[in-house]
Amino acid sequence: MENKIYVVGMGPGKEEMMTGEALSVLDQADVLIGYTVYLQLLGERFQEKEKMSTPMRQETERCRLAFEEAKKGKKVALICSGDAGIYGMASLMYEIGKNYLDIDIEVIPGITAASSGAAVLGAPLNHDFCVISLSDLLTPWEKIEKRLIAAAKGDFAIAIYNPSSHKRKDYLQRACDILLAFLEEERACGYVENIGREGTKAVTCTLKELRNQEVNMFTTVFIGNAGSEIINDKLITKRGYQIERDTNICGNN
Amino acid sequence: MENKIYVVGMGPGKEEMMTGEALSVLDQADVLIGYTVYLQLLGERFQEKEKMSTPMRQETERCRLAFEEAKKGKKVALICSGDAGIYGMASLMYEIGKNYLDIDIEVIPGITAASSGAAVLGAPLNHDFCVISLSDLLTPWEKIEKRLIAAAKGDFAIAIYNPSSHKRKDYLQRACDILLAFLEEERACGYVENIGREGTKAVTCTLKELRNQEVNMFTTVFIGNAGSEIINDKLITKRGYQIERDTNICGNN
Ligand SMILES: C[S@@+](CC[C@H](N)C(=O)[O-])C[C@H]1O[C@@H](n2cnc3c(N)ncnc32)[C@H](O)[C@@H]1O
Ligand SMILES: C[S@@+](CC[C@H](N)C(=O)[O-])C[C@H]1O[C@@H](n2cnc3c(N)ncnc32)[C@H](O)[C@@H]1O
Repeated sequence: MENKIYVVGMGPGKEEMMTGEALSVLDQADVLIGYTVYLQLLGERFQEKEKMSTPMRQETERCRLAFEEAKKGKKVALICSGDAGIYGMASLMYEIGKNYLDIDIEVIPGITAASSGAAVLGAPLNHDFCVISLSDLLTPWEKIEKRLIAAAKGDFAIAIYNPSSHKRKDYLQRACDILLAFLEEERACGYVENIGREGTKAVTCTLKELRNQEVNMFTTVFIGNAGSEIINDKLITKRGYQIERDTNICGNN
Repeated sequence: MENKIYVVGMGPGKEEMMTGEALSVLDQADVLIGYTVYLQLLGERFQEKEKMSTPMRQETERCRLAFEEAKKGKKVALICSGDAGIYGMASLMYEIGKNYLDIDIEVIPGITAASSGAAVLGAPLNHDFCVISLSDLLTPWEKIEKRLIAAAKGDFAIAIYNPSSHKRKDYLQRACDILLAFLEEERACGYVENIGREGTKAVTCTLKELRNQEVNMFTTVFIGNAGSEIINDKLITKRGYQIERDTNICGNN
């Protein structure tokens, strides 16, 4: 692994939701770099490894640290939650990598919250969908608004990341209000808190009800498309099979 | 696992890209049900297991088979490629499950082609994105067209599944023509064939070039957003960090 940094998605939290590939990269690394909370989630298996971190919000520092450690000849794994390429550090590593051309970057994919949360809720993303973050720290709110409207107009199912934070308590409400201008109040929705971690909590509800829910930053929110249904408390977005007639014409699964 | 069916995402192909959870569910199952190609991909570890299949396109039959085997008391794992909840069989299982209320369903998430393909290409989905299938077997083409337009108008990065098949050779071209009405010809794009399997092939190109590429059904296509760039032959969609100033304000990774 010399002169190569692995940018590793660790999935939602528990070790058994990591891939074998991700585990073996971490096993072989000399140093694990990541946000403290994720390093802690890793647990016993990596207890003896050298670990380095920078405070939350110092992501470019964290990336530079990874390159500097790799330059010393260490095998470096930079850890992100979920998938490293979905609101994770993969792109930032490639951007900063312009200054470290002798060091290779490899992204090891992980289960993103859209997939792991969907599995808990049932099958909310089983047709075309959008993934939208409500965090306006790196994206102007107007752009987020525009994307919510585009997603509603396109009749996509939607997975919402970063639905809330201490400073943005009303963002999910604002997002729901935008969607409610296009979608019916009864639209099938749901959310999952602490996917793959202690205290997993899944809720199905209508869009109108979702508007008044208090969710925290460890939550992923799901909005169904026009055909989505809540079946036995599971949020289901159909792929369009004709179940009665059994004339199943579809791509391979 | 009695009277419970696991609907398992096996990731893009190779065993090391499966999660520990998925592997252990398959290990414990009495019978593995799936499309023949995926059952074959599973390899040696599961050689001794009973396996059952229905021909391609007989998905509802395959789901019913799973329920009927579970009714006999067998531990059943229904296998999908990638993630079972993304153009997979999860929602169909819940729909058909209405007729088998005493049998529980649990979805075990897997790495979907958007994540695994993105990792090969660099970081094409590292901001808000849409996932769209070009298969019009279960969805009218007008709806697909509408979603492509909505995705373009919303400045989403896009992952395209089912970009081609024997009968739909020109679909990617048609999709590119629709996108080219809204996006510039030089828009950064790419595609990956056979992710996590023999013969992985990754290509970066412009949208104009993508229009004339011949891709097959084992390909996932990526369209960048307005800020995406090809850096050292990797397709990168930025999250928006101010790299120079280092005043990193962002959510946790
Ligand atoms: C900065 S993003 C990181 C996403 C991550 N890279 C992924 O692919 O899942 C943080 C957001 O992801 C979602 N998220 C990540 N892990 C989660 C978990 N274990 N449970 C619920 N939501 C989660 C939440 O919406 C959270 O606000
Ligand atoms: C019916 S969909 C199944 C998707 C799968 N459930 C997933 O989550 O990846 C089939 C499409 O997924 C994409 N795909 C699935 N596995 C792939 C692989 N190993 N390499 C490239 N594309 C793949 C291709 O676009 C293909 O046409």
